[in-house]
Amino acid sequence: MKFGGTSVADLSRIYRVARHVKREVDAGHQVAVVVSAMAGKTNELVGWVQELPQVCGSKSPFYDAREYDTIVASGEQVTSGLLAIALQSIGVDARSWQGWQIPIHTDNAHGAARITGIDGSDIVRRMEMGQVAVMAGFQGLAPDNRIATLGRGGSDTSAVALAAAVQADRCDIYTDVDGVYTTDPRIEPKARRLAKVSFEEMLEMASLGAKVLQVRSVELAMAHKVRTFVRSSFEEPDAPGMGDFLNPPGTLICDEEEIVEQQVVTGIAYAKDEAQISLRRVADRPGVSAGIFGPLADRSINVDMIVQNVSEDGAFTDITFTIPTGDMDKAVHILEGVRDSVGFGAIQSETGLAKVSVIGVGMRSNAGVAATAFKALADKGINIRAITTSEIKISILIDGPYAELAVRTLHSVYGLDKK
Amino acid sequence: MKFGGTSVADLSRIYRVARHVKREVDAGHQVAVVVSAMAGKTNELVGWVQELPQVCGSKSPFYDAREYDTIVASGEQVTSGLLAIALQSIGVDARSWQGWQIPIHTDNAHGAARITGIDGSDIVRRMEMGQVAVMAGFQGLAPDNRIATLGRGGSDTSAVALAAAVQADRCDIYTDVDGVYTTDPRIEPKARRLAKVSFEEMLEMASLGAKVLQVRSVELAMAHKVRTFVRSSFEEPDAPGMGDFLNPPGTLICDEEEIVEQQVVTGIAYAKDEAQISLRRVADRPGVSAGIFGPLADRSINVDMIVQNVSEDGAFTDITFTIPTGDMDKAVHILEGVRDSVGFGAIQSETGLAKVSVIGVGMRSNAGVAATAFKALADKGINIRAITTSEIKISILIDGPYAELAVRTLHSVYGLDKK
Repeated sequence: MKFGGTSVADLSRIYRVARHVKREVDAGHQVAVVVSAMAGKTNELVGWVQELPQVCGSKSPFYDAREYDTIVASGEQVTSGLLAIALQSIGVDARSWQGWQIPIHTDNAHGAARITGIDGSDIVRRMEMGQVAVMAGFQGLAPDNRIATLGRGGSDTSAVALAAAVQADRCDIYTDVDGVYTTDPRIEPKARRLAKVSFEEMLEMASLGAKVLQVRSVELAMAHKVRTFVRSSFEEPDAPGMGDFLNPPGTLICDEEEIVEQQVVTGIAYAKDEAQISLRRVADRPGVSAGIFGPLADRSINVDMIVQNVSEDGAFTDITFTIPTGDMDKAVHILEGVRDSVGFGAIQSETGLAKVSVIGVGMRSNAGVAATAFKALADKGINIRAITTSEIKISILIDGPYAELAVRTLHSVYGLDKK
Repeated sequence: MKFGGTSVADLSRIYRVARHVKREVDAGHQVAVVVSAMAGKTNELVGWVQELPQVCGSKSPFYDAREYDTIVASGEQVTSGLLAIALQSIGVDARSWQGWQIPIHTDNAHGAARITGIDGSDIVRRMEMGQVAVMAGFQGLAPDNRIATLGRGGSDTSAVALAAAVQADRCDIYTDVDGVYTTDPRIEPKARRLAKVSFEEMLEMASLGAKVLQVRSVELAMAHKVRTFVRSSFEEPDAPGMGDFLNPPGTLICDEEEIVEQQVVTGIAYAKDEAQISLRRVADRPGVSAGIFGPLADRSINVDMIVQNVSEDGAFTDITFTIPTGDMDKAVHILEGVRDSVGFGAIQSETGLAKVSVIGVGMRSNAGVAATAFKALADKGINIRAITTSEIKISILIDGPYAELAVRTLHSVYGLDKK
């Protein structure tokens, strides 16, 4: 069971979390819990770290990531202890575990470490004795014997990794939404909660901005086949159905094979504030793509869709790609700098675009899914600027103001409105 | 170098602390620093722990001391990391150390643990390489592999213990006063700062309410002969004299033998809000004292002066003792409960008293020190209610309103006013 920062934001919410845990213990399950820092606490600590060099008169804003980790990990340390006390107060045996105590081994990439291994034996032994393990999320022990944090959203990753280490039946991620929906309910009120979604689909949805789970944690869940269940921490712990282990309210992210009635299309994702850059008359020779996208990556500009057509004359081609609107000025500046070495003509840019994506593992075995989307959008008079596809996803770049209309149109055309 | 909570209360004060440290590093010293939590932080964390069981509907206010330690120790963890970053920002190589990393071994008495051993080898090795060790105070690692805190004021103890472990030349305790005075300057403006005071004298002063250093840390310093230097963290780090390692402004607490020009009397301490209880016609037989003071100790009532005269008739005696005024009702209630079993007559009590104490290791070899005090007080018309003495201390119980006059009188009669 993993609870995020808003779920443990104050003492009364920690009490609520304790009751969620007690419900599962009372149902006879062996439980480990992973907690984030109290909401706002991590930001406060990070703020101090970032501000301090300047207060000390340093012209460099850099700081030691190992100290950053020591400082920031204290937030989860506090919550783990508080939840253990809350559980004890309602009669549930519990103890807190810090990353270094288990230990959760990480690499040395302080500030954004990756988990390299977990020794779950102590925790399993105590879980078998009926003790709830409350683990501080987001942290581990690096080879230098110092605390390492996993980067933002790391508590989800901690939870999935621990679930894998103790071979849990399920990893329940309690969050401020009650599951994964066929699309954003704020845009399409007919959006339905999915009972199950495959790892692959969830990966596409997470990276497309469905902010339910961090991409890293889904990747880890997929690699270790950890059945991950997204559910609401705001529901009353004793609400009807919450304690039904086989069928609680929420969305199960699981192996494709576990999803019996597979839909062709599972969901419609979207991303706004996309910007498009087109490079005209790009010399069509090896190394050109690296010359363009390397410098952008070096400056941490996240390039998303890339479209390059086969050149007509074998000498020049056009390359179009998308980036977040906020990075536009920076990107154009970088591209101007490499224009001569790479060799291209005009740089054309446009902001205020949107990307809508149709996602579903069923696409693999169903022809015509893309054609359906194109026709539906055309019928509404929505112009398609660019298209990219993968095995289980079709992404379409359109003008921003049409985003909501496009989402609703696609949601309807694939039958996602229906029960 | 040890810095308390007010010295690290915010980022700009942490910067000031870093400059104090840099001054010593620049002077060629190898430095380890011990820090407390930011002022107010420990109280906030303790408050959460104490409040939580009630929030969870528990009728018992008790909580797991191991979780308390995990939660509360996070305060020092944050400060140690911040100071390391501040030092790095001004060009001083530094790293933070948590109690479990060094490790500082403690016993299993969570919440009020005692240090059982420190492995200073890693720290010494890095200090020799020029790296400043910034250690989180107040904490260690218990045999159960969990964090243990040392109880309030524990950071002073951490500092002295670390100084002993690394065989430091000196343990500098930076505090909000600039040293130990011959008496409280708020009462006697002519009070002078002592250049040196012996461990034994400091122990008497600390336990008498001179709140400069925790008694435990002085005991530890005495046991390991750690030369402990009390100095001000509020002075500018580069003020004249601050960097004079042999003669900085402050008070050195050291072995008696190091104090060449020993005064007969070193200082005058006092404690207000004392209360007196006299038990009349106490049966004069073995076990009586245990029957009286045992139950008081069991209820954590701190009995201070105890006066029992030799009985006149061999059958009955009077026993007088002092306690804090706040414990009076509780104490009388306890005594009423044991009256029949112990056997005594009237309980007489009086509150609003004060204790003044004359302290000095020179007393051992100087007769007439006590007589001087009694005569000086008599000359001012101050009535003496009770007297207790030790080898290096004379304590006198008087009526509360005379406390300040008595302090000034004694300060003058022993020549402490003079340079």
